[in-house]
Amino acid sequence: MPYGSKDEAYKNASTLAHLTAGQALAGYALLITDLKRNLSAEASPVILFGGSYGGMLAAWMRLKYPHIAIGALASSAPVLQFEDIVPLETYYNIVSNDFRRESTSCFDTIKKSWDVISSVGRKVNGLDHLAKTFRLCGKLRSSDDLYNWLESAYSYLAMVDYPYPVEYEMPLPAHPIKEVCKAIDDSADGTYVLDRIFKGVSVYYNYTGKADCFEVDEDLDGMDGWDWQACTEMVMPMSSDKNSSMFPERAYNYTSYAEECLNKFDVMPRPTWITTEFGGHDYKSVLGTFGSNIIFSNGLLDPWSGGSVLENISDSVVALVTEKGAHHLDLRGATTDDLDWLVAQRASEVKLIKGWIDDYYMAKKAVFKM
Amino acid sequence: MPYGSKDEAYKNASTLAHLTAGQALAGYALLITDLKRNLSAEASPVILFGGSYGGMLAAWMRLKYPHIAIGALASSAPVLQFEDIVPLETYYNIVSNDFRRESTSCFDTIKKSWDVISSVGRKVNGLDHLAKTFRLCGKLRSSDDLYNWLESAYSYLAMVDYPYPVEYEMPLPAHPIKEVCKAIDDSADGTYVLDRIFKGVSVYYNYTGKADCFEVDEDLDGMDGWDWQACTEMVMPMSSDKNSSMFPERAYNYTSYAEECLNKFDVMPRPTWITTEFGGHDYKSVLGTFGSNIIFSNGLLDPWSGGSVLENISDSVVALVTEKGAHHLDLRGATTDDLDWLVAQRASEVKLIKGWIDDYYMAKKAVFKM
Repeated sequence: MPYGSKDEAYKNASTLAHLTAGQALAGYALLITDLKRNLSAEASPVILFGGSYGGMLAAWMRLKYPHIAIGALASSAPVLQFEDIVPLETYYNIVSNDFRRESTSCFDTIKKSWDVISSVGRKVNGLDHLAKTFRLCGKLRSSDDLYNWLESAYSYLAMVDYPYPVEYEMPLPAHPIKEVCKAIDDSADGTYVLDRIFKGVSVYYNYTGKADCFEVDEDLDGMDGWDWQACTEMVMPMSSDKNSSMFPERAYNYTSYAEECLNKFDVMPRPTWITTEFGGHDYKSVLGTFGSNIIFSNGLLDPWSGGSVLENISDSVVALVTEKGAHHLDLRGATTDDLDWLVAQRASEVKLIKGWIDDYYMAKKAVFKM
Repeated sequence: MPYGSKDEAYKNASTLAHLTAGQALAGYALLITDLKRNLSAEASPVILFGGSYGGMLAAWMRLKYPHIAIGALASSAPVLQFEDIVPLETYYNIVSNDFRRESTSCFDTIKKSWDVISSVGRKVNGLDHLAKTFRLCGKLRSSDDLYNWLESAYSYLAMVDYPYPVEYEMPLPAHPIKEVCKAIDDSADGTYVLDRIFKGVSVYYNYTGKADCFEVDEDLDGMDGWDWQACTEMVMPMSSDKNSSMFPERAYNYTSYAEECLNKFDVMPRPTWITTEFGGHDYKSVLGTFGSNIIFSNGLLDPWSGGSVLENISDSVVALVTEKGAHHLDLRGATTDDLDWLVAQRASEVKLIKGWIDDYYMAKKAVFKM
């Protein structure tokens, strides 16, 4: 964190300008080099580990700084979620499928709910009615705010659909989507659709049952940095398809996205910079020819998996895919509850990484012999 | 050039901060990507060409942006002239050898001259005497200034020791070191050593014979940008060895170097950043494993050749070395006077580059067939 404090560093576009992926990689390069020097460990091989954005950094760092790290485990790293490399509807389709696989009626209820929310919202006192139904602490300014609050819950649920209870942004049960859908489906026949939806999201926003009311426009902790990055270089286009998604149809609109960024941060995004800097369009050939010792691990429940690398590129740029994994589940601490497929995934990772380290020492030995 | 004008861009450390190798590469990445898009040439292979600092950029860009350029001709690119990768006395030894190979007595006269300059400079009116001997326009403030003026001439002469007349910083004859040494050696027996030296450097500073007097502290055109870079990331340590060099003994003193930078630009150098960003210490393994399609071309008369790659690293990272070439001679326009070895060097370069392009189209074809 430059400038001595978060307040200073996040002050404006000119200080935030240093918050880039390239700067992060340069920082790691300095840190690792310095650590190795100070620990007399200059000959020790370094492996990069990262999940989500950190997974992208791990993969990119292996590409850009192969002299500093001998390999990378890039977990849930959506390195292809830029421009039009993957279909724009991928992300919301995966979220939607996660709900559909638990329960078609749950999927249908959510899909139906958006029209109900808009039509109620348009009525006299409709917003107050919505605020009451969803037990909001304050007034609801627009049904869009409610929409975003719900959409955010469903997206996060897809990311954290773990097989055991966790505390991610908040405490959640095991298989939280199953629980949300149970809450939505299990209400008595004829229960009002928005009451069902409220019961459902309460599993996410209020699993402890302690919340008296909810704030729909609360920023999640630590997301301000990501917002800046999303408004500069991490521009990840997404749309929602009428047929395949449970969300309302929504086309990707770069112009309004850029306008929002200009308003919020006084910057215009650079939507093609990431692929210019790190490649992407021709990723199979680029990763195959110039990359080595990278694992892309993904769980298919995770909506970000659709923007990651899901097939082997070469002998040493490999994809480890688990059908029932969520967002970088492999990087969570091991527990006695871990299922066989997760234990196996981690074992594969360890085996590959051990191989890289063996190769490294073998090559070192060969050099010393010469 | 950012900020609209050179004056603004070179104003202070905060605007000059953008003058870095990494920024230059990012700029080229954007430019090439944009050009290809606007020229509907996205499938066309790109080859990078550069000499000297530009040669380093070409090699580094091929390492960092292999998805943008399929190969690089890095001519006279001293990518190893950092930290202690090559012996610090290399540069001045090569300059010295260039003079010695023309004439031992020339080398000896120059080697002897430094003590004469200091001892004259220390006398009453000694500096005035030196100013008169070297026909300076103004007063001489210290014999160090004269020293730097001479050293700069010899170093440049080694760089531009071309086999035909050129205008580099100023018009020069063919084989200028031979001419300088002739002027030094051919004076009548018993000619004062400093008069000989003056005759010698006049070939460099006044080949046209039009100069009435000389300014010893004149900055060469366009060197202000390089000075900034040398004070930030392009820190190239050099020393002069008593036995092998014709220059006075001089150890490398980083502390005083850094102090000068602090005074001049209000910055501290980052002497290990270049090798952190681009590698260097383990260059054979790094270039061999992660690099491909790079030619390092060097002429051994060029003092920068000592900090470059002079042997083949792999099938596609190759060194082309000419014994009688000077600083990026291969990148100068072809002339009818070009000697066979230069014609042959350029032919080798063309053949290698053609091979890269063939490989590129072959790989493309293979992908389309799949």
